[in-house]
Amino acid sequence: MIQKDEINEILEKYHKEKITIATLCSHSALNITYGAKQEGFRTLGICQTERVPYYRAFTEAKPDIFPPDIPSIEDPKDMLNEKFQEILREHNTIVVPTGSFVAYVGSKNLEENFFVPVQGNRKVLEWEGNRKKQKQWLENSGVKIPKEFKYPSDIDRLCITKFYGAKGGQGFFLAASEKDFYKEIEKRKIDPKKTKFVIQEYVLGSRLYPHMHFSPFSERGLKINDGWLEILGYDQRMESNIDELHRAGLSRKEMKKLGIEESFTVVGNRPVIPREKLQIPYYSIGKKIVEASQKLFSPGMLGAFCPETICTKDLDIYVFEISARIVAGTNIWSPTGAPEGWYIWGEPMYMGRRIAREIKLGIERGELEKVVY
Amino acid sequence: MIQKDEINEILEKYHKEKITIATLCSHSALNITYGAKQEGFRTLGICQTERVPYYRAFTEAKPDIFPPDIPSIEDPKDMLNEKFQEILREHNTIVVPTGSFVAYVGSKNLEENFFVPVQGNRKVLEWEGNRKKQKQWLENSGVKIPKEFKYPSDIDRLCITKFYGAKGGQGFFLAASEKDFYKEIEKRKIDPKKTKFVIQEYVLGSRLYPHMHFSPFSERGLKINDGWLEILGYDQRMESNIDELHRAGLSRKEMKKLGIEESFTVVGNRPVIPREKLQIPYYSIGKKIVEASQKLFSPGMLGAFCPETICTKDLDIYVFEISARIVAGTNIWSPTGAPEGWYIWGEPMYMGRRIAREIKLGIERGELEKVVY
Amino acid sequence: MIQKDEINEILEKYHKEKITIATLCSHSALNITYGAKQEGFRTLGICQTERVPYYRAFTEAKPDIFPPDIPSIEDPKDMLNEKFQEILREHNTIVVPTGSFVAYVGSKNLEENFFVPVQGNRKVLEWEGNRKKQKQWLENSGVKIPKEFKYPSDIDRLCITKFYGAKGGQGFFLAASEKDFYKEIEKRKIDPKKTKFVIQEYVLGSRLYPHMHFSPFSERGLKINDGWLEILGYDQRMESNIDELHRAGLSRKEMKKLGIEESFTVVGNRPVIPREKLQIPYYSIGKKIVEASQKLFSPGMLGAFCPETICTKDLDIYVFEISARIVAGTNIWSPTGAPEGWYIWGEPMYMGRRIAREIKLGIERGELEKVVY
Repeated sequence: MIQKDEINEILEKYHKEKITIATLCSHSALNITYGAKQEGFRTLGICQTERVPYYRAFTEAKPDIFPPDIPSIEDPKDMLNEKFQEILREHNTIVVPTGSFVAYVGSKNLEENFFVPVQGNRKVLEWEGNRKKQKQWLENSGVKIPKEFKYPSDIDRLCITKFYGAKGGQGFFLAASEKDFYKEIEKRKIDPKKTKFVIQEYVLGSRLYPHMHFSPFSERGLKINDGWLEILGYDQRMESNIDELHRAGLSRKEMKKLGIEESFTVVGNRPVIPREKLQIPYYSIGKKIVEASQKLFSPGMLGAFCPETICTKDLDIYVFEISARIVAGTNIWSPTGAPEGWYIWGEPMYMGRRIAREIKLGIERGELEKVVY
Repeated sequence: MIQKDEINEILEKYHKEKITIATLCSHSALNITYGAKQEGFRTLGICQTERVPYYRAFTEAKPDIFPPDIPSIEDPKDMLNEKFQEILREHNTIVVPTGSFVAYVGSKNLEENFFVPVQGNRKVLEWEGNRKKQKQWLENSGVKIPKEFKYPSDIDRLCITKFYGAKGGQGFFLAASEKDFYKEIEKRKIDPKKTKFVIQEYVLGSRLYPHMHFSPFSERGLKINDGWLEILGYDQRMESNIDELHRAGLSRKEMKKLGIEESFTVVGNRPVIPREKLQIPYYSIGKKIVEASQKLFSPGMLGAFCPETICTKDLDIYVFEISARIVAGTNIWSPTGAPEGWYIWGEPMYMGRRIAREIKLGIERGELEKVVY
Repeated sequence: MIQKDEINEILEKYHKEKITIATLCSHSALNITYGAKQEGFRTLGICQTERVPYYRAFTEAKPDIFPPDIPSIEDPKDMLNEKFQEILREHNTIVVPTGSFVAYVGSKNLEENFFVPVQGNRKVLEWEGNRKKQKQWLENSGVKIPKEFKYPSDIDRLCITKFYGAKGGQGFFLAASEKDFYKEIEKRKIDPKKTKFVIQEYVLGSRLYPHMHFSPFSERGLKINDGWLEILGYDQRMESNIDELHRAGLSRKEMKKLGIEESFTVVGNRPVIPREKLQIPYYSIGKKIVEASQKLFSPGMLGAFCPETICTKDLDIYVFEISARIVAGTNIWSPTGAPEGWYIWGEPMYMGRRIAREIKLGIERGELEKVVY
């Protein structure tokens, strides 16, 4: 693990008035770049060669420093090259890691081999990426979580089986019994001995993704220990084909006959607002997750994160996963802002902008190292 | 019933340049408070003690006069205390009643024991809260309404059974026959003789909630008799678990086996826009409801209201309920504004702001008593 | 077909500093009118008499030149009257044709009998309106399209049957076999020999409607040959009763017993944002459609258009139809703007405004005839 001191040393050499905010051109890069520009930063886009013309199409959200000014890359892992890292450091770059960034580059690589300051707490990588550690984090926080079943034979209610490392929900399936489980496994030609999966209680309700941010500076939002928790908005994911499968009106039997399987591939996001009374338990969930993180990996969760939740008919909220960084669902509120962001800031405060604002606050207060690692 | 003259007398003593807009911290309080601030009013938050830190988190939407400046309350009914009412009057307060406000404080209490000016026509309380009176209102208006069945034995089509006073749709169920009805009753362990319910035809289509406002001043929107009807936006409710139950792909039989029941608990709202041609029948429905209200309880409907509707495949619109005040669905458009609000006002006009604007217009014209009772 | 020269001649006589943008009061007229006003144009509303009071209700989006200043019409076809066309030309009018405009007036009439400049390429009318030509356009472009089946006996997978000229999806049905097909036909009392229909593979996934615009001027967006492609936002249609039918929890058998049929009538639109990585294939689809159009009917697609798509679980995108003009789904983003519009223009750029901006750019560059026919 790269030490905090090593990053602090790099950060000390940076020209603070010339900080550049960079991200990988994917996931929520337009949101991040547009927000960074709005906060007055120079922006840099790490972009795969084949994507360059498309990111260029976003005339106003296109990064300032972009191919051909800097090299485009063939593979996201190329940003690990010493020469590329050197370019980033020369531009006084702080990198905003997104889910795609971590997935493509590899969390181990970010922990060990990426000597560029990263927004947030680099330690969160192992607590987010490792299922066991994430589970420990959630359990320690005391939030409601879906029950997990170790063996298919334990299944005693409706469950969802999720595969480790599956991108965007692909391949997930539901089963209410051991028999169902093996039917699905067989249908999908999966060898359960060779595949890592987790069997999770499937909680019925409405999925809600709150866009949280924790700051040591903001003096806005809910005060927690030495910082402030903000919820800047909510979204709901759009998943293919499960969201519209019902429109076909098929029974399970017909689906089987037609060779149709349900799937949970994320294809987009929609804006939602929860009932106002639910803002309270959502803040309470955020608080618990932040406090647990501070105990587990001090200074704990910093910047954007999202407890992925289900709200049941009794208004119980279950957290089934934590994304410990900006989620793509925040894109739907960029750049006009969700109601909650306006209520806290009095201006459109979407997550891409909020992240840049945090870096700005850090620079202004001479405490940038508090939000960068 | 508190007389209009009594409220007018209180209102006369108010410093009109120092009017404070207050509401109960719940439901759409952030929307109302932010809107009132934007229109230049001081705001006051009536807040249950346990909610104080959470409402404080909304730094820019937090009421100006808020605990500890005024007492927090343990129970919403505490605002009926003479001393609390006195504080409200001292601050020249006009209260915006929300659905939560009415539900928690009780409509009878608002009618008899709350001597503080309330935005809108206080008489609407009994026409909204009493199912028989609301039905009379709807029938008099001539809008399409779902058929109601007095006895379970009358059920001859798909019906929804709704319980009186159920919060946010909890416990509602569908049945297409008397047999189905009793099956559901039994499953839910309900004694139909001890429970008040209404059996309503379940109209198939898309739910649409238009955000209407009727004003004696605005000179914008559709002219009706001595006032103007505006539709400022639309939303669709998000209900748990019914909205996502289909994702589990269960048959009724499987649901029964797993002990799963459908439910209609409102958990949030989503933005929608109807086809432009539907704006016309929606205005027509609003017109009919306003005109009927003027005949039934002069001066009739004032300020925000919402006919809750279903739009069928043939574009017939059925009204299944009227909310005679601001609905929480308006929260989704706060504060950036729905297209319709912009089209009428040329600026973001969300319902919280619209209500404050109406009070402002009343003050400017010296006719505040026309929109407050 | 009216010749381009004939329109150019009319356009030459126009006072370019006094151009008026007109449309039929329906579909997306508020979006178009508000956008045209924002770009500094005078606006004119062609309005059916019965709709006049309702369009007047939109105080700020109401056209500047509106009944009683100009005649209201009893039937949209009345705008073909020589005298009405003369009024339009006298006001230096450019008409923005919407789907309703084309449907009500008739594409043949627009091609032959409407001597008023129209925004876009008039030649697109026959390539959009004629199913065979549209299919040729799609096939030439090389985008993925759902398989079509000539005869019911060819059905070998889940299919949707669409009727020619059906407004807003009414009457469409699903069938997975020839037997199913005839069952549905019988249930609906349709004579398949007297009715024109198309049987299309029903692709499972999420419907996504990208709001595209092609310009010879903009120098923003993706460069294609001599022009620029922009995607200004996305929406998803709300269809009655299919979108909420699942809430009733009925099996096919129960539906049949209750006489309930699924239907696909469009009742509104919802905002969505796709995963950022999907922006790339969507641009690629737009590029292919534009390039094919340039070969088929030079200068090809101009202005607003929308490939109607399904995104599958494997993130394959199928185009099942092209709307070759502004789609009503753009209404949901008016006038605050979708993220994508902001990312390209740095200001709220909704389709109604974008169309007016294009006319403005044409005037400024002295090349108005390039975007009007």
